[in-house]
Amino acid sequence: MTKNRIISGVLGVMAGLLVTVIFFADFNQSDNTANADNKSNAQKVYVAPGEHDDYYLMASGGHSGQLFVYGLPSMRLIRQVPVFSPDPATGYGFDDKTKEMLNGYKWGDFHHPSISETDGEYDGRALFATDVGNNRAAYVDLETFHTTDILEIPNIAGPHCAAFVTPDSEYLFLPTRFSVPLGDEFTGLDEYSEKYKGVMSAVKPDFENNTLEVAYQVILPPWAYDLSDAGKGASDGWGFLSTYNTEEATTTLEINASKNDRDYIVMFDWEQISEEVEAGNYEELNGTKMFDPIEHPGSVYLVPAPKSPHGVDVTPDGAHFIANGKLSPTTTMFSVEKAFEAIKNEDFQGEAQGFPVLTYESVVDKEVEVGLGPLHTQFDDKGNAYTTLFIDSQVVKWNLESGKVVDKEEVSYSPGHLAAVEGDTANPGGNWLVSLNKIAKDQYLSVGPSHPESMDLIDISGETMEVVGSAPSQPEPHYAQIINADKIKTTEVFEKDEGRENAVWNKEDAHIERDGDDVHVYGIAMRSQFVFDANSESPDAVTVKEGDTVHFHITNIDRDQDITHGMGINGYNENFEIQPGETKTLTVEADESGTFPIYCTNFCSALHQEMTGYLLVEPE
Amino acid sequence: MTKNRIISGVLGVMAGLLVTVIFFADFNQSDNTANADNKSNAQKVYVAPGEHDDYYLMASGGHSGQLFVYGLPSMRLIRQVPVFSPDPATGYGFDDKTKEMLNGYKWGDFHHPSISETDGEYDGRALFATDVGNNRAAYVDLETFHTTDILEIPNIAGPHCAAFVTPDSEYLFLPTRFSVPLGDEFTGLDEYSEKYKGVMSAVKPDFENNTLEVAYQVILPPWAYDLSDAGKGASDGWGFLSTYNTEEATTTLEINASKNDRDYIVMFDWEQISEEVEAGNYEELNGTKMFDPIEHPGSVYLVPAPKSPHGVDVTPDGAHFIANGKLSPTTTMFSVEKAFEAIKNEDFQGEAQGFPVLTYESVVDKEVEVGLGPLHTQFDDKGNAYTTLFIDSQVVKWNLESGKVVDKEEVSYSPGHLAAVEGDTANPGGNWLVSLNKIAKDQYLSVGPSHPESMDLIDISGETMEVVGSAPSQPEPHYAQIINADKIKTTEVFEKDEGRENAVWNKEDAHIERDGDDVHVYGIAMRSQFVFDANSESPDAVTVKEGDTVHFHITNIDRDQDITHGMGINGYNENFEIQPGETKTLTVEADESGTFPIYCTNFCSALHQEMTGYLLVEPE
Repeated sequence: MTKNRIISGVLGVMAGLLVTVIFFADFNQSDNTANADNKSNAQKVYVAPGEHDDYYLMASGGHSGQLFVYGLPSMRLIRQVPVFSPDPATGYGFDDKTKEMLNGYKWGDFHHPSISETDGEYDGRALFATDVGNNRAAYVDLETFHTTDILEIPNIAGPHCAAFVTPDSEYLFLPTRFSVPLGDEFTGLDEYSEKYKGVMSAVKPDFENNTLEVAYQVILPPWAYDLSDAGKGASDGWGFLSTYNTEEATTTLEINASKNDRDYIVMFDWEQISEEVEAGNYEELNGTKMFDPIEHPGSVYLVPAPKSPHGVDVTPDGAHFIANGKLSPTTTMFSVEKAFEAIKNEDFQGEAQGFPVLTYESVVDKEVEVGLGPLHTQFDDKGNAYTTLFIDSQVVKWNLESGKVVDKEEVSYSPGHLAAVEGDTANPGGNWLVSLNKIAKDQYLSVGPSHPESMDLIDISGETMEVVGSAPSQPEPHYAQIINADKIKTTEVFEKDEGRENAVWNKEDAHIERDGDDVHVYGIAMRSQFVFDANSESPDAVTVKEGDTVHFHITNIDRDQDITHGMGINGYNENFEIQPGETKTLTVEADESGTFPIYCTNFCSALHQEMTGYLLVEPE
Repeated sequence: MTKNRIISGVLGVMAGLLVTVIFFADFNQSDNTANADNKSNAQKVYVAPGEHDDYYLMASGGHSGQLFVYGLPSMRLIRQVPVFSPDPATGYGFDDKTKEMLNGYKWGDFHHPSISETDGEYDGRALFATDVGNNRAAYVDLETFHTTDILEIPNIAGPHCAAFVTPDSEYLFLPTRFSVPLGDEFTGLDEYSEKYKGVMSAVKPDFENNTLEVAYQVILPPWAYDLSDAGKGASDGWGFLSTYNTEEATTTLEINASKNDRDYIVMFDWEQISEEVEAGNYEELNGTKMFDPIEHPGSVYLVPAPKSPHGVDVTPDGAHFIANGKLSPTTTMFSVEKAFEAIKNEDFQGEAQGFPVLTYESVVDKEVEVGLGPLHTQFDDKGNAYTTLFIDSQVVKWNLESGKVVDKEEVSYSPGHLAAVEGDTANPGGNWLVSLNKIAKDQYLSVGPSHPESMDLIDISGETMEVVGSAPSQPEPHYAQIINADKIKTTEVFEKDEGRENAVWNKEDAHIERDGDDVHVYGIAMRSQFVFDANSESPDAVTVKEGDTVHFHITNIDRDQDITHGMGINGYNENFEIQPGETKTLTVEADESGTFPIYCTNFCSALHQEMTGYLLVEPE
């Protein structure tokens, strides 16, 4: 209060000058190119109505199984894209095509997204996702933000240490967190060290058809593979994996998997392995090509790293890889050049499960005392690294060349991963960093015993970091990638493909065909009606008999931006959306007689409420 | 640029003084009580990291079936609360209790939320939800943000015109959008006018047990009931419903349900109906008490209203009700006093489906020319109404007393409902209004052919309105309510109830019991381990035989804020979360032999990755 009065006095004297100052302030506010330092934090994160964010943040949705797409710097959630779990809002997993793609899975655990790359930089074509819960990988087409393929992968359990894509998207590698008996046959835990294996899958994307396939798999020791990164530049052709539980414990891992002072970074030559497989050096197992690097040595090496490392991150130039020892106060920076030298000289300090262990001292570049619980590292464009400290609840900025800590910033709370603008590519942005925090606790209005996760937006454009914004995030962002908005080129309306199977493009052509007990409805959705049978007195009604199978083939002929229709059947537990110009098929069993209203579930016009019809099921 | 240089010059001279001014500015920024007019829009919506929003916005999630909880003014999505659809992230619909509650439904269409009221004001105890897709109502406990009960309601189709709660939460009324044959037996559309009925359900909340039950149902004409509101103050004891399709069309409603110049507002005396039912004046139908107001006249009246009204909204004092004629350029304000007078005097202009129609001219107070496509109205604390104009893409502010339009504000685009702070209660807030727009189109970074819906945040504290913020919203907010944050009192940790069924509170007490082919696991989850059997060498492993049924009863004994554990079974398509102090049961069939890793799916500590175990299924 006293302070206030003093200031008022000062201000009285300054009144005239203040007008000028306020004018300056206003002018500055409307200048979007103003130096960030002149802006308040509110202004830094504010994206005015109608204006667009500069970046997409693509966050894994963890045990929701879905992808969450945010805008930066506003941190507004733009869209939940269904990937590994059904989505009632869009009918993902309801219509025939996506139902087949999900294949009965009601849940997934989407851990790490990986945007496709060209020359080590995000190219905005696709995003790859991995499912730790049910051992799958997915292709998300970034032109439509549709999941276009889901690949079920045999012989593995929990591809946590994935996805990482190679610099030209040749492969997506999926090492696993859980080792299981090779070939999936039952084997007791007493034979763990001999018969359990960590199997890494090499998955090949097909950018023509927007699909994935398993190229081959690689047998690795029965350890837990945690995180990974692809080599690039100096290390192109190689991959790096962090491990824990090299103790090969099978119970109470909290204690038993933390006994060794050092675990390993696995470095492997994927170009060489690919050639070996190409040359026929593999065995078939459950339909995949299984490569055993013990039988064909020279492609897999181990580097000792501080106790239970979480992230292993390759620097933008590819010359170093950094292991974050989550139970050690340091991150360790290794030299790729030194590692190659050690391999050439067979400078090994021992072996583990048959693989050579490079001599630590020969490969290490520096150990950096960053703080407690380092988990994951990203990079800027000025030679700095940013590492999350889970236990200290901080992000630490440190210089790659000097190994000196430059700054620390508190986040709320317990950060796991972090994502900088294109911060894991060959060409990081250097302006924004998002800390993906595991605990939100008291940060937002409470929603009961369960809290959301949280994201802190950090301005890293200056020498020191500053948290300028905070947003709850949906469960559970394990990793995220931030891509320049101008790299994403979306389709707004699907092409009118006259040859498309089951499509009807004119209202007059809508008709119903019966084939035994199968009733095929070739219908359209348009503002503001369904037309199932143009020649009927009730064109928006479908009459069938109890016991029939009804196939609704519906085309949304409104080819206008943002005019999506939905089709729900009341009391029938079915709903699906049809985007502008899209055709979808929903198959339902008419197993109960009755009157079931059909209605548009996605608001489309002032007469949306009138966009209704009926499924009439006559008794047998 | 020139301007900038001039200002720089001025500033050079002022440098010393500026220090003082900046000090003042900083001080002022941290003053939360600063007059809103002095703040930039960025500042108005900014909630700094660590600070809390002032209000909860509870938005229906439409065809997602879920509740979306946002904070205002930041418009950050805090939580998706699962209500009518399964939720893989939390395991809602996976564990035994919620699986039984969802009863096989994979989809719902949550239209209108209704926060419980005391004396006509939100009391923050519960939120009621209705499912247009599958004819259900739900009780969401706002102490835990858990859905505690789902009620399947017979004899109805599409409770769109709901939920509205009476001023002391005596009842929740659910009139329907679709009329169907009474008793659900198959009847052709040719008998629509005679045999189809719109059935309204009176649902009674039980605040002790957090449950709902159907008190009785009321037979109404075969029209579409769109929106509703409860009387209060002068109109306490009455309810108001809007109707369309009083034409009783059964096909191509776009044309056929828009023929009459006027449809009706249904006003009904729920206190009288409740007494009639209490007195035994009902028939049993599919287990509910069905009241027919034609047989017991005097409780239901019709008021002519402009063509196809959408919202019907009762003013804060309860003295008027306002019908928004979506196909008319006006909203119509009716007088409750005049309506009562007309009823007393039998001042009827006719009848429809056996119900008296009050004389329009006797009941109308004023017609207000608001603009095109008026849909829904909310109120402030200064005698003003705010109506969405779907076609004009505007919100219009008009004065209740003068009937004059005060201001119009563009929104983006095509608003359906709108929500003001406690704007449908007896005591509206008057500072913020959120327009729930159906079309986002170009407002955010594109995510393909499908766009989110959008919300515009409007500052209504001044004479004119101003859109100050915009956020994408998740599918599809049909209605939302905004409640003062201090009215919500959440539980952070569940009580340690020693008598709770299936709970184990000490690690040492974890054990496994076999009962024939049923294996009961009484286990605990804690940082950072599962203990299923304290006396086993592998306390975190469960070994069963192929063909067994395994019941995991798991208690989270970490009774600390925000320490939720999850339990996923790899390759088993199962996951569920256990909040602090909670006990849950998951039942799985061990129908395939093999090794299935169990792991914590909800990050809980630095050793979360080590929180694993096994389900070992031995071959038969």
